[in-house]
Amino acid sequence: MLIETLAAAGRSCFAAASLRPFSRSSAMAKSKFEYVRSFETDDTCLRNCYIVVRLDGRNFHKFAEQHQFAKPNDDRALGLMSRSARSVMEELEDITIAYGQSDDFIFVFKRTTTWFKRRASKLMTHVASQFSSSYVFYWKEFFGEQPLLYPPGFDGRVVLYPTNHNLRDYLSWRQADCHINNLYNTVFWTLIQKGGLTTTQAEDRLKGTLASDKNEILFSEFDINYNNESAVHRKGTTLIWEKRNETVSKRIKRPNEEEQQVPVTRSRRKVEAYYCDIIGDQFWEEHPDVLEDDT
Amino acid sequence: MLIETLAAAGRSCFAAASLRPFSRSSAMAKSKFEYVRSFETDDTCLRNCYIVVRLDGRNFHKFAEQHQFAKPNDDRALGLMSRSARSVMEELEDITIAYGQSDDFIFVFKRTTTWFKRRASKLMTHVASQFSSSYVFYWKEFFGEQPLLYPPGFDGRVVLYPTNHNLRDYLSWRQADCHINNLYNTVFWTLIQKGGLTTTQAEDRLKGTLASDKNEILFSEFDINYNNESAVHRKGTTLIWEKRNETVSKRIKRPNEEEQQVPVTRSRRKVEAYYCDIIGDQFWEEHPDVLEDDT
Amino acid sequence: MLIETLAAAGRSCFAAASLRPFSRSSAMAKSKFEYVRSFETDDTCLRNCYIVVRLDGRNFHKFAEQHQFAKPNDDRALGLMSRSARSVMEELEDITIAYGQSDDFIFVFKRTTTWFKRRASKLMTHVASQFSSSYVFYWKEFFGEQPLLYPPGFDGRVVLYPTNHNLRDYLSWRQADCHINNLYNTVFWTLIQKGGLTTTQAEDRLKGTLASDKNEILFSEFDINYNNESAVHRKGTTLIWEKRNETVSKRIKRPNEEEQQVPVTRSRRKVEAYYCDIIGDQFWEEHPDVLEDDT
Amino acid sequence: MLIETLAAAGRSCFAAASLRPFSRSSAMAKSKFEYVRSFETDDTCLRNCYIVVRLDGRNFHKFAEQHQFAKPNDDRALGLMSRSARSVMEELEDITIAYGQSDDFIFVFKRTTTWFKRRASKLMTHVASQFSSSYVFYWKEFFGEQPLLYPPGFDGRVVLYPTNHNLRDYLSWRQADCHINNLYNTVFWTLIQKGGLTTTQAEDRLKGTLASDKNEILFSEFDINYNNESAVHRKGTTLIWEKRNETVSKRIKRPNEEEQQVPVTRSRRKVEAYYCDIIGDQFWEEHPDVLEDDT
Repeated sequence: MLIETLAAAGRSCFAAASLRPFSRSSAMAKSKFEYVRSFETDDTCLRNCYIVVRLDGRNFHKFAEQHQFAKPNDDRALGLMSRSARSVMEELEDITIAYGQSDDFIFVFKRTTTWFKRRASKLMTHVASQFSSSYVFYWKEFFGEQPLLYPPGFDGRVVLYPTNHNLRDYLSWRQADCHINNLYNTVFWTLIQKGGLTTTQAEDRLKGTLASDKNEILFSEFDINYNNESAVHRKGTTLIWEKRNETVSKRIKRPNEEEQQVPVTRSRRKVEAYYCDIIGDQFWEEHPDVLEDDT
Repeated sequence: MLIETLAAAGRSCFAAASLRPFSRSSAMAKSKFEYVRSFETDDTCLRNCYIVVRLDGRNFHKFAEQHQFAKPNDDRALGLMSRSARSVMEELEDITIAYGQSDDFIFVFKRTTTWFKRRASKLMTHVASQFSSSYVFYWKEFFGEQPLLYPPGFDGRVVLYPTNHNLRDYLSWRQADCHINNLYNTVFWTLIQKGGLTTTQAEDRLKGTLASDKNEILFSEFDINYNNESAVHRKGTTLIWEKRNETVSKRIKRPNEEEQQVPVTRSRRKVEAYYCDIIGDQFWEEHPDVLEDDT
Repeated sequence: MLIETLAAAGRSCFAAASLRPFSRSSAMAKSKFEYVRSFETDDTCLRNCYIVVRLDGRNFHKFAEQHQFAKPNDDRALGLMSRSARSVMEELEDITIAYGQSDDFIFVFKRTTTWFKRRASKLMTHVASQFSSSYVFYWKEFFGEQPLLYPPGFDGRVVLYPTNHNLRDYLSWRQADCHINNLYNTVFWTLIQKGGLTTTQAEDRLKGTLASDKNEILFSEFDINYNNESAVHRKGTTLIWEKRNETVSKRIKRPNEEEQQVPVTRSRRKVEAYYCDIIGDQFWEEHPDVLEDDT
Repeated sequence: MLIETLAAAGRSCFAAASLRPFSRSSAMAKSKFEYVRSFETDDTCLRNCYIVVRLDGRNFHKFAEQHQFAKPNDDRALGLMSRSARSVMEELEDITIAYGQSDDFIFVFKRTTTWFKRRASKLMTHVASQFSSSYVFYWKEFFGEQPLLYPPGFDGRVVLYPTNHNLRDYLSWRQADCHINNLYNTVFWTLIQKGGLTTTQAEDRLKGTLASDKNEILFSEFDINYNNESAVHRKGTTLIWEKRNETVSKRIKRPNEEEQQVPVTRSRRKVEAYYCDIIGDQFWEEHPDVLEDDT
């Protein structure tokens, strides 16, 4: 408050008449202006559709450079994104699945959620806010003593998907995007970091190449099998809720008995991370609770 | 990344077939899903209207208690709100005025802004995000060694106002609200802190009282003239852009001359804070650039 | 044009300067104003949802009285509604099913329609317009020499349904409404027309009665089995497209043969009317093409 | 009802179970489906903006040909459009001004209208409906014994304008459009009808010509001064409400007097048509009540 208060002292305006609008009754004065509330418009999301909130980092290219992110992937940065996403899910429990890659993250609310009365603006701003405050809050857990230079920004939007099929295609689209980008980036930075090319030379080398060409460059020139690269880079991060049994020992004192340690098992809902294919059916068959039935 | 990566190792699914969807061409696979983009709907804000983004703290009653905010006003907390709002304005320069009180803040984009192509979702999420990351980032500047216990959340919304008259009534409504709340809170906490009442007794005492009654309680019982209370509490915080001349001294070396210190004056746009009445005309006459002409 | 032209003569303003705004170039002048187009906002309907347009007669209670509609149902009026709805379907072929009762009619566009690029405003206004012009156009076919006293009005709206289940529930809701209203109206008007009660007495008699009570009144007092009442009154009108084989005879002249009459069978898509239950599964099983698969 | 009823008899489905869903209580059954109402979304128009509904004829090029409209302007058709627009204004009295040219018509609701609670869908469908039913209803007044071959369709949309300036620019844009089209059409059809050119030759002749060129062709080759052409064609039709004094004679019988004819003058609001420039200020100065103050 230091600076702010000084400014206030210097510039607040003690006009004698400043309270006049409230001379009779402040409530009356306020009610005169209250009509402005009717300018708000309703943005309730269509019922029975999945509500997807998508966040994207603002100017993260520059942000990554200023914070010396490793190329092509910085595991600290990916971990922080994932930690922030988990914070969002724990705050907004009707999010059933989230998927992230690079500097974007997607949050899917269940079809029947009534969170915020399904108001799009509230849902997307709360997600954007919680994610952003968490990103700064948990920075140290991933970057240690390396300072965060300024508060980063994310922008968001809402998209609705009426059926399970549409939603899965949306998530597939994001994972296909992750794959294409990561394969490109892996080859690009390998050509530079191990092959000694300049960025321009690497770009030229990759112009017009297909996925198979890129795999071949990695394999024949650098002895890298792309399929053995880290799953989190190739597949992105998928977060879902899971029930886990947790056993803790509790000290219990029963009447006429000695106090004793007793193991207590409870089922707890926890956010778990997966780094696997979500385009095929296997993931969905193994986690049937993520999607609700269309009918 | 520590925890996250371990989890990854344990649970990522190395299914042999996992790359199959990309067998022929990843680009082709991606394009199959790309139709999902057409589910996004346009939320462009009506042209020539002021775009207002309003943020509200989520569960700030609890947040204030957990962080021992002073009652009825915590200047550290107000300063941090104001600092975060300034961070938003510096990032989104088309915001011409912002107004805050308690745990809410309002941002007004100029009528003719084309920021984010006037897309409501992008505007409000970016504001919510920048505000929230700034709140955590600047926490220490205002709370020093007192730790932030968890990342706070804000929710937001967009409202449009077609005319200067409507916009001023909206801001007046917020300031009238600030006045009513602050007068109530001031008396309420004075009755408790100086008068020794319990919260229930204070509530009972204030039931049905008018503004004049409250002023009278403060004056006759506690020798407090409400009008002399801090302006930032009574009026809230108004942030606008102002041109200020700044003189810095620069070392300049002219040919055939000694290097010398030269004062250089530049006009700079800066966010300034005001704590004064914005319901009457004076503020607006003194800052004619804040509003654009209706015609 | 008679009256209008006279008015024009009297009041058109032959100001010498009236063309001035176009003095240099009309195209240039027009382009100066063209920015106003950007105030239009996009109202594209969410993809993969059924688009329902519902029309309701404006002040049809009064309209019915002024045109001496029979009570409780006027078959001429119902026929005209149905004829107008068919005209809408023939004009907008992506409507797969329509349902009408009393003075309202519902039109369901197929999920994947791209008619008018799925713009809600265009879809609902075209439906409202085509229905209304048809209502006047076909009046004589149903009311003969009884004159239409003034042009009637209908208002409309658009509602989206994401799944087959939701859409069927919507149609069920309308048919349940039809049933409740028609049972009430049938007993009400029977009490008046055959029972000699006044409208007030009939209202009092029916206050608090259940469906079973109403059936009982009809049966025991007037020897009417409600289930034998006209299906169009009890069930409303359902219109769908059906393929029908049509055999016409054509005169054909083959080389070296006499010209002869030949029967030619063609499959034609026609709008057909049903007056049956659409709440249960039977109708939908018999007409599997009306709904598209959710998956 | 003739055809429809026969169809009904043939195809209505007397399934014994058809009433089963209502076996217990129809009201209960209906309430089970009633959730579908919550799928309706709010489309309230932003407060304090002019609400403009614009209608356009569907396939009117073909409609004009099939009904032998005179070229380049058919006064019967223009009169019918104008008559239908007046019918809309008389039904929806909050429309303060309407403007039409060719086969489109614009209706402007006053800024503060609360008609239909400002719901866009209701406003535009009612306008489209009333206009369309009127078009058929009044056809005979303008086309006499020439039959209307089929019910015509119009589509519509809603656009909001926040200020008087924006609204006037919108109307100016429409009138500039009218001018450009009518000048082109006038020369085009004069070249064909009086100059003996084919349509292709006329098109070629006009390619790349400016307004001044077109005026010159009319003047030098056909002795036509475009400014003397009919105002309704050059300027379109503007409809506004005006107070007119109307004097009628009434038979009045006072006590102890003979019954006598007495002239009674009343002020009545009537829709009046203008065919003059609405781009310049004169029209608006002469009719100050059409626009509401911005402030």
